[in-house]
Amino acid sequence: MDRIPILRMGKCLLVTIQVDMQDQTALALQDDLAGQIEKTGAKGVLIDISALEIVDSFIGRMLASISGIARVLDATTVVVGMQPAVAITLVELGLSLEGVRTALNVERGMQLLNAAFALDADDEEQAESEDAPGEAT
Amino acid sequence: MDRIPILRMGKCLLVTIQVDMQDQTALALQDDLAGQIEKTGAKGVLIDISALEIVDSFIGRMLASISGIARVLDATTVVVGMQPAVAITLVELGLSLEGVRTALNVERGMQLLNAAFALDADDEEQAESEDAPGEAT
Repeated sequence: MDRIPILRMGKCLLVTIQVDMQDQTALALQDDLAGQIEKTGAKGVLIDISALEIVDSFIGRMLASISGIARVLDATTVVVGMQPAVAITLVELGLSLEGVRTALNVERGMQLLNAAFALDADDEEQAESEDAPGEAT
Repeated sequence: MDRIPILRMGKCLLVTIQVDMQDQTALALQDDLAGQIEKTGAKGVLIDISALEIVDSFIGRMLASISGIARVLDATTVVVGMQPAVAITLVELGLSLEGVRTALNVERGMQLLNAAFALDADDEEQAESEDAPGEAT
């Protein structure tokens, strides 16, 4: 059984889907990704589907499911590189990839994630400063 | 014929090899990579082979050839993610991947490339300051 490699880049994990996904490959990818998020503490997952010429409901469900798993493990998933024809077909089929964030390419996906990380960091800082005892008045 | 997607990340191009390479796929990858280097002006190429369980002389030659093509187009190639078993077999077979730089994983490969870019930038600055007319003595 083929396994899809997961590459670590800083706080992100990058997955490039090149082969037609079978049930087993998809399940293995979900397991591997969940494991890697836990092991590396990654905050973002980028899934590149630029090699896919067809995205059917199976792949759509898989992307939504990975996105959901990552979310409960506190990581954001961005699907990148969708071909225009794929986007057209998806909408025509009524598959709108709900709950899945997308970006045009890896570079923009990474920017989107970095912006989200920066926002998180700000929130944490703010929360910390609010928790800190104020000056005596 | 399958094509292997080439992802652009800043000044680098990233290729993840997941399938067993056939002659046609390898030739297409060389063409695509050369085209992308020209189009994007990329200075680095990262080739991830973590999914490959066997690297034979054909893949070895292909890696060397891509590395050579990239070099004449002024880009550095780093092969990353080689499995330990593959490294052992390569050396036992006497294939030493001459002229190909390697790194343990994508993250370290990226660090290596960024260090090389920084060095290049320094060289250019120095060359420029040497070209600039000196102060009158």
